[in-house]
Amino acid sequence: MTPEQTFVDVALRSWRSDMDRAGKLFGSLTAEELELQVAPARNRLIYIWGHLTAINDAIYPLFGFGPRHYPDLDKMFISNPDRAVARVPSGPELKEIWTRLDGGLWDEFQKLSAVEWLQRHQGISPEDFVREPHRNRYASLLGRTAHLSFHLGQAILARRR
Amino acid sequence: MTPEQTFVDVALRSWRSDMDRAGKLFGSLTAEELELQVAPARNRLIYIWGHLTAINDAIYPLFGFGPRHYPDLDKMFISNPDRAVARVPSGPELKEIWTRLDGGLWDEFQKLSAVEWLQRHQGISPEDFVREPHRNRYASLLGRTAHLSFHLGQAILARRR
Repeated sequence: MTPEQTFVDVALRSWRSDMDRAGKLFGSLTAEELELQVAPARNRLIYIWGHLTAINDAIYPLFGFGPRHYPDLDKMFISNPDRAVARVPSGPELKEIWTRLDGGLWDEFQKLSAVEWLQRHQGISPEDFVREPHRNRYASLLGRTAHLSFHLGQAILARRR
Repeated sequence: MTPEQTFVDVALRSWRSDMDRAGKLFGSLTAEELELQVAPARNRLIYIWGHLTAINDAIYPLFGFGPRHYPDLDKMFISNPDRAVARVPSGPELKEIWTRLDGGLWDEFQKLSAVEWLQRHQGISPEDFVREPHRNRYASLLGRTAHLSFHLGQAILARRR
């Protein structure tokens, strides 16, 4: 493994670890548990799970993998706060979406070379990227992994002890 | 910047971003606010701040930068749960320790070449590292950054709105 490949490998392991942890945690919750809030007057677990799912869906266009698969998730879980949209997917529905997106992203991630990881993501123009070469796919992967950790830290607070 | 240097640069930016966020959040809290719990019967903010501080202190020996500076923090903030140790540093004391450790680590991080980032950390033996080359300083940096994000996600729940 070249040094570049090792850097990619390490970041993918970090992503995989958080994704597995999140999938296991949220995927095991009952409908009742998904209604629990992480703290008083804070987000429900179903909202956090949906939020992470919607963010994962948005990685497809961001990384140039193709269009979003579930754009409707945005108004439920990103652009609006919890409970603003009454009808959201059930736990089993969300689990299916989560699993599909996870598998698809993971397949795409494997195909990228180290050079491709350092290419710009679609959230920055070619002109700006010349000045800010750190705004690449790899940086976004680290950012998305940190975002997963951020909400995992919240989600475990709602667990029964 | 070589590809290797870009990978390092991206991870250091991620660490810096979380450290700045944590320093600003915890450093601005009053003594009273530091007593707030992130959720009912969960850790106080002072405990989370001390925990992150102790973990940062442990990076010194882990990365081969030298001995720990504040080993006493462990029994207060790592090996025991919140409130098990009655006497812990005050907010101003913790802020001074946090700032000193942050500055020291940041200086050391700048000195490491990309090759050195991919060397083993001190938590793994040379023999095991041959089989598991992903257990390097760089992977630990990503892990520590994720750990910061994890607890930041909890800490913001206690903030007044």
